[in-house]
Amino acid sequence: MLTGVKIAVIGGDARQLEIVRKLTEQHALLSLIGFEQLDHAFTGATKEKIEGVDFSKMDAIILPVKGTNLDGQVDTIFSNEEVFLTEELLQKTPAHCIVYSGITNSYLDSIISKTNRSLVQLFNRDDVAILNSIPTVEGTIMMAIQHTDTTIHGSKLIVLGLGRVGMSVARTFHALGAKVKVAANQSDHIARIIEMGLIPVQLEDLEKTVGDIDICINTIPHLVVTSNVIEKMPLHTLIIDLASKPGGTDFPYAEKRGVKALLAPSLPGIVAPKTAGNILADVLSQLLQEGLQKGKEQSK
Amino acid sequence: MLTGVKIAVIGGDARQLEIVRKLTEQHALLSLIGFEQLDHAFTGATKEKIEGVDFSKMDAIILPVKGTNLDGQVDTIFSNEEVFLTEELLQKTPAHCIVYSGITNSYLDSIISKTNRSLVQLFNRDDVAILNSIPTVEGTIMMAIQHTDTTIHGSKLIVLGLGRVGMSVARTFHALGAKVKVAANQSDHIARIIEMGLIPVQLEDLEKTVGDIDICINTIPHLVVTSNVIEKMPLHTLIIDLASKPGGTDFPYAEKRGVKALLAPSLPGIVAPKTAGNILADVLSQLLQEGLQKGKEQSK
Repeated sequence: MLTGVKIAVIGGDARQLEIVRKLTEQHALLSLIGFEQLDHAFTGATKEKIEGVDFSKMDAIILPVKGTNLDGQVDTIFSNEEVFLTEELLQKTPAHCIVYSGITNSYLDSIISKTNRSLVQLFNRDDVAILNSIPTVEGTIMMAIQHTDTTIHGSKLIVLGLGRVGMSVARTFHALGAKVKVAANQSDHIARIIEMGLIPVQLEDLEKTVGDIDICINTIPHLVVTSNVIEKMPLHTLIIDLASKPGGTDFPYAEKRGVKALLAPSLPGIVAPKTAGNILADVLSQLLQEGLQKGKEQSK
Repeated sequence: MLTGVKIAVIGGDARQLEIVRKLTEQHALLSLIGFEQLDHAFTGATKEKIEGVDFSKMDAIILPVKGTNLDGQVDTIFSNEEVFLTEELLQKTPAHCIVYSGITNSYLDSIISKTNRSLVQLFNRDDVAILNSIPTVEGTIMMAIQHTDTTIHGSKLIVLGLGRVGMSVARTFHALGAKVKVAANQSDHIARIIEMGLIPVQLEDLEKTVGDIDICINTIPHLVVTSNVIEKMPLHTLIIDLASKPGGTDFPYAEKRGVKALLAPSLPGIVAPKTAGNILADVLSQLLQEGLQKGKEQSK
């Protein structure tokens, strides 16, 4: 239970509603900032304007997955007003106040450091990344179905990387009947690919192995789908790049050659906002409880 | 090889192009009727107007998947002209001429019977139905992703029927991590559901088992998703009906209660026209060769 814990939820999309639902169920007291247009009401949550909120009592601030932009502005889907998280505002919070965000950037890092508060990046956590890979994979399946005129079943597919997302992608497309190769370079990853019944490829041999590939799914966040690799692909190959922006594909070269290459948007929030919100809500609820416990122990 | 075999291909969509490709590769001589707007040319295939075709030499006529409508009109995606398959026209073909169609209707049955020709309904064949279930399932996955705000993974799902399509649906959604029940009434089907590691439900007990279902996928072509069944479902349940028109769902009642129910269109031609065309092309090519072989044996 989070009885009496004061939390400011600033901006966000449908995923944030699941977080609000879960935290109010646990009796936290929420100030919802940037939610004026939301029809639904939650017991224990009050819609407020940012200038009316008393930040000196806030135990936590929850930002949307993207955090802020480089000017400190927070996305607010349920409001037309511009909302900013500023250094001055953060300075007003008590010292123990923790800021939760999906990811961070130089602006957010800077105001966190200047005010000496703590920031938790939820998407840095392995548990969040692995659970989030489930809706990511379903979104990838949807893109593969929409952008090809053949079935996934029977397609020749290569997955680049066997990390938290790569493993989910490889396993699921294999289950759908695709012929799946996985490119990696760590020896334990190669061993795992073999154990999974898939075809291992050394990443350095990528060029030699894409000559008959129908779909290439990249999860590695640096340039691996180079012009040399794209040049060896059939023209009908579909590249889906799941690595965080700017992806790991030479997009200009793919366009020049006429190979369709898509940088996937943040799929969980699009294809399964409720599930994606629940993943974050569960982790946040656990982290907030742990924080409360620690606070109590320190004050003993 | 189908060297010299004369075939009229009348109307159809992108799937028909795969059939044309495959049959011309085997040196059949094709008359393409209703394809004026098609840019691509195939060696051995001539675009013709129906009134210019000499049907007295035709060994076979290939209709689109839907066959004709009840007036004898054939769908032509690649033409603006109206094309009709008439009794008079069929009468002009040689006695051994075989008509191939996906499905039939009272009009087509009637002119086939009056002219004493043979009709092969490709979709009646188990091999075609099973192979076609692959793109059908991928289309169903796409619909389930688009029409829910949760992941398929972890969803509570019930499949009605363990026929040629039902088995593919059950197996694939299970592989995607859904919790799958399958409703059937034949004892061998119940045994197979158990063997597949899924949860068997007697069809007569359907009402009692849908109280916590997120997605219901029907493959049974008569009314099984009755108002009594829909009444017991949660309001968020998504019903996808894959049974041929008019489906097996009480759609008016679903709408009245606010439960989303979708009668799936012909998914293979939409999500994977190339694969769907190849499935038909392979079977047609085999059937035409067998027909040729039989003809030769009879003339010995």
